[in-house]
Amino acid sequence: MTNHQVRLQPSNIIVEVPTGTLISEVIHLAGIDISQPCGGQGRCGRCAVILDDESGVRRRSTIRLSAEDLEDGYALACQTVIEGDVTISIPEQERIERRLVTDKSARKVELPFAYDPVTMQSVQAFQIHLSPPTMQDNIDDLSRLQKALADRGYSPIDIPLNVLRRLGTVFRDAKWSPWIVIETPTPPPGPARLIDISVEPIRPIGLALDIGTTTVTAYMVDLTTGQVLNSAAEYNDQINRGEDVISRIIYAEKKDLNELGVLVRQTIDTLLERLKLRTGIPPQGIHKVTVSGNTTMIHLFLGLPPASIRLTPYIPAANDPQSYLAAELALGVNPHASVYCLPGVASYVGADISAGVLACGLADSEVLTLFIDVGTNGETVLGTREWMVTCACSAGPAFEGAGVVDGMRATEGAIEEVWIHSETYEPTIRVIGGAKPRGICGSGLISLLSELFVTGVVDRAGNVKLDLDTPRVRQGEHGPEYIVAWSDETETERDIVLTKVDVNNLMRAKAAIYAGFTVLAESVGVELNDAKQVLVGGAFGQYINVENAIKIGLLPDLPWDRFHFLGNTSVLGSYMALLSHDAFEHTREIAQRMTYIELSADNTFYDAFTAALFLPHTEISRFPSVADIWDQEKRD
Amino acid sequence: MTNHQVRLQPSNIIVEVPTGTLISEVIHLAGIDISQPCGGQGRCGRCAVILDDESGVRRRSTIRLSAEDLEDGYALACQTVIEGDVTISIPEQERIERRLVTDKSARKVELPFAYDPVTMQSVQAFQIHLSPPTMQDNIDDLSRLQKALADRGYSPIDIPLNVLRRLGTVFRDAKWSPWIVIETPTPPPGPARLIDISVEPIRPIGLALDIGTTTVTAYMVDLTTGQVLNSAAEYNDQINRGEDVISRIIYAEKKDLNELGVLVRQTIDTLLERLKLRTGIPPQGIHKVTVSGNTTMIHLFLGLPPASIRLTPYIPAANDPQSYLAAELALGVNPHASVYCLPGVASYVGADISAGVLACGLADSEVLTLFIDVGTNGETVLGTREWMVTCACSAGPAFEGAGVVDGMRATEGAIEEVWIHSETYEPTIRVIGGAKPRGICGSGLISLLSELFVTGVVDRAGNVKLDLDTPRVRQGEHGPEYIVAWSDETETERDIVLTKVDVNNLMRAKAAIYAGFTVLAESVGVELNDAKQVLVGGAFGQYINVENAIKIGLLPDLPWDRFHFLGNTSVLGSYMALLSHDAFEHTREIAQRMTYIELSADNTFYDAFTAALFLPHTEISRFPSVADIWDQEKRD
Repeated sequence: MTNHQVRLQPSNIIVEVPTGTLISEVIHLAGIDISQPCGGQGRCGRCAVILDDESGVRRRSTIRLSAEDLEDGYALACQTVIEGDVTISIPEQERIERRLVTDKSARKVELPFAYDPVTMQSVQAFQIHLSPPTMQDNIDDLSRLQKALADRGYSPIDIPLNVLRRLGTVFRDAKWSPWIVIETPTPPPGPARLIDISVEPIRPIGLALDIGTTTVTAYMVDLTTGQVLNSAAEYNDQINRGEDVISRIIYAEKKDLNELGVLVRQTIDTLLERLKLRTGIPPQGIHKVTVSGNTTMIHLFLGLPPASIRLTPYIPAANDPQSYLAAELALGVNPHASVYCLPGVASYVGADISAGVLACGLADSEVLTLFIDVGTNGETVLGTREWMVTCACSAGPAFEGAGVVDGMRATEGAIEEVWIHSETYEPTIRVIGGAKPRGICGSGLISLLSELFVTGVVDRAGNVKLDLDTPRVRQGEHGPEYIVAWSDETETERDIVLTKVDVNNLMRAKAAIYAGFTVLAESVGVELNDAKQVLVGGAFGQYINVENAIKIGLLPDLPWDRFHFLGNTSVLGSYMALLSHDAFEHTREIAQRMTYIELSADNTFYDAFTAALFLPHTEISRFPSVADIWDQEKRD
Repeated sequence: MTNHQVRLQPSNIIVEVPTGTLISEVIHLAGIDISQPCGGQGRCGRCAVILDDESGVRRRSTIRLSAEDLEDGYALACQTVIEGDVTISIPEQERIERRLVTDKSARKVELPFAYDPVTMQSVQAFQIHLSPPTMQDNIDDLSRLQKALADRGYSPIDIPLNVLRRLGTVFRDAKWSPWIVIETPTPPPGPARLIDISVEPIRPIGLALDIGTTTVTAYMVDLTTGQVLNSAAEYNDQINRGEDVISRIIYAEKKDLNELGVLVRQTIDTLLERLKLRTGIPPQGIHKVTVSGNTTMIHLFLGLPPASIRLTPYIPAANDPQSYLAAELALGVNPHASVYCLPGVASYVGADISAGVLACGLADSEVLTLFIDVGTNGETVLGTREWMVTCACSAGPAFEGAGVVDGMRATEGAIEEVWIHSETYEPTIRVIGGAKPRGICGSGLISLLSELFVTGVVDRAGNVKLDLDTPRVRQGEHGPEYIVAWSDETETERDIVLTKVDVNNLMRAKAAIYAGFTVLAESVGVELNDAKQVLVGGAFGQYINVENAIKIGLLPDLPWDRFHFLGNTSVLGSYMALLSHDAFEHTREIAQRMTYIELSADNTFYDAFTAALFLPHTEISRFPSVADIWDQEKRD
């Protein structure tokens, strides 16, 4: 048998192997540890490597690779055999802890557009030169400043009291050439405002926030260059007062609205402190803040009572609140900084969605686009640059881990992906942090349900088949269940299971989301499967496995290359609005343009929901690729 | 000898007396106590009564009565004899305690002009009627309000965060017909602001303040009718941190600027509490505030460092600060109330003078008018509606009682008027509160110096004549002095005296003020004595005796009927500005129109000052009436 030289990069090790050797075996021979969470079934796609030349190998399966991946030379190590000399690059192994809210190595955020601070930015810093007063020219300090600023076109000018109080000292210490920061209102009316004054040069800094129900994310931005200097994310300290928006609303109503404001400011303070450590810029050096988030989060941030959000007819106090000063909000940045909350559409389609639509480009798209923000809530927008319809699915918190016996948040110890052997029904699991599992998070649940369905453990109606020849299925305390991990393998020393009730909850959640898609499509008379792009935003969305999500009927059955996972589109929109007031106004226009469909008042929703309460759907014709795979698995 | 029937009112007692009986004797016979502090010399004018018919009496002297008084039937009881039947009304005796800062019987303040709240007032309260939301009409509460207000022309509208926080609850409790208070900015730009919202009807209330160095005065005003509901005055709690502006500035500079702000707010809180007790209106019910006061008081109220005010070239931080919210100023009224400080002219001609010029009518006067605000400082304005010049005299605090051995503020125990017998040199004194004297206040000092001069105890150069045949003059510890009260008559059990040094201090003070008048007149080329009106403002000014003030050369020698004592013109201007934004703008225009003459930089001032360092003046021709009296006294 012919031997071939395989060079492994970046370690530059050469291994000689015979024809037909799996790349995963080559790597193993070289003493390199490669992650294979699915155990080499070609299902998880985590063992992808990069080939320098296609000719030295043969691929058995490309199931987890997109056309783009293939073009880039990606191959699955467990599904590709050596047939000639070849050089293989092993990408740095994805850190298993990536799902933890950690940002030690905050990746560089690209400028979302060509940034011109002069024409786009409302906050400007510059030095002015005043003539010192004399007995002949003895006007007061304020009038002297007003004249100088009027010469630059800033008249009238609003000077906050605390700035006025420092004028005299700063003017004299700066030898009448102080630095100032001015914010111009956009749009008028209203005078420009003097935010800060200093002897030392001032660099204007902004903060883009996304207040998620689970996570708060902050970008610290240099308003001169537009660059993100650093970013940070942290769990929202409100979490212990309720995991979802409804329980937070109830807490605010029955217990303490103010406390929830204190808690989110505490989280923001934590982020500001972290950003200060990394950049040297203190919170007081921040001159402008934009805030995105769902309607409830914005209410709690502003201290607005959210009670009416959860009561029919679901009326928020404000969808488009005006800007307020940081001091009014007790926010620990420069007290004169304006805080702009992005506009939302309705009680359950908030600023995070307006921001997401801005950031994902849907509002400017020429092709039919579906935007889904799969965060703590499930909001969907369907449209093009011509029109947009939106709805919010009361999916329930199942994908957040709540309402599921062993559900948990995507944190250390959560099972985030599952592969089930089609013959033995034995699972392979991947756990966040790599330690013993404690429960199953959202992406793990999607993965698990998909595997249970594909392997036939669960039927299309969501019933657990107890007659399979495996100890993994049994009649449990809560009815039929599948054991994902035995007690001796878990952190909690209890079996981790998925019960029939859990399956039903997950199916209701995915059915609600999919029904939302179909209602939107039907409301405007388009076919859902005509969508040319499916843009998935949200921190959770980042980790969804398209294949699994399609298999269970959560996402529409479209070619994988139409799906784009954009991560946190809400903070991205907030960042864009921070850079450019036009972008901010664009979110307002987007919010106004979106036609909101209140599903609870929509007659077609219930039918669509019921039809979606199957795996993947009552109408299997809507999911042709799933029908194929399923048939194929059945055959195996 | 014929008897006549004299009917005394309001007691309706009839007394029969012979021809030639003094009215004061008639009153005494009737058992009525009438105040005669000068002992019946016809000099104090305090025993004035009202005659129903001139024909039954003969007047010996009308020295203390104006033409207007005479027309109104006033006669001095000690200088008028009965010659027929007559009815005499005895005015309620002026309370001797009136000079204490007390306002138990706050007199009614007249509306300064015909008031139309709709066209003049920036603050309006009204009820709005909103349609309740439904599933079909499910816009947010804020948008619903914005639409309703836009229909009334209020768009855009600035809604403070704390008001926004209450929208939802108030709307629902008020069954969608809430009461609101809106302030319209005058002039634009800037949106109207929603100040308050309530289930119950709201009556808009304003507060006009005058922050004097010594006294803070407040008018609580119904903004619907314009009427002063009540007023209150109290000593400025800053007094213990310095009696004059310069010592307050030094305290702010060297010790604690913030503390002075806290102290004046404490005084205002005292006034608000008192006004609440009397009107039932809590401080939070006040929706608009105007503030007058000298430049230093405004600086301390706003927390602006006043240091540069006292240093050449005497530059204030701000002469015309913008409006600020009560919350920013920690003022205990509705936190969203705008606080408007009236504009000043310069470091030593402040908002109190702009307000005074507005209130006294000088800015609209067709005749040459001299306006003097004799408060803690001595500011003067000369002009007509065509032009105005102004200056501030560093008179020093002598008239405030400081810099004088036995000087004190006009409070209980202060000698406020003195009459000296021209032969015995024995004094008659009037003491505030009627108890034993503790010292001499400003009006007492003017009165005393005038009497000492007229009786020849002090010569024109201010020397005390020690060779007079009376124990009242002696060589004291501080040089020659006159004993006003012996130790056994005083509260302090020490002699109360006026020393030569005191006399010199008083002469310097009056010379500075008079020199200011002459510099102003000369700067515009008019004769001071051509002034057709002398308008005297200020709390202290209210109690100056014109005759005495002319005698010592403090006031110009003009017919007494040209003098008008207007009381606190600063609070009156503040009240006018509160009622009408046009009036407020008028003070701004007044401040801008006034030409400020900085006396310390004026070459003619020193000469004018030196010339005035005589009693009444080096050029006696400037004081013809004094020359007459003096000659006459000499003859006696």
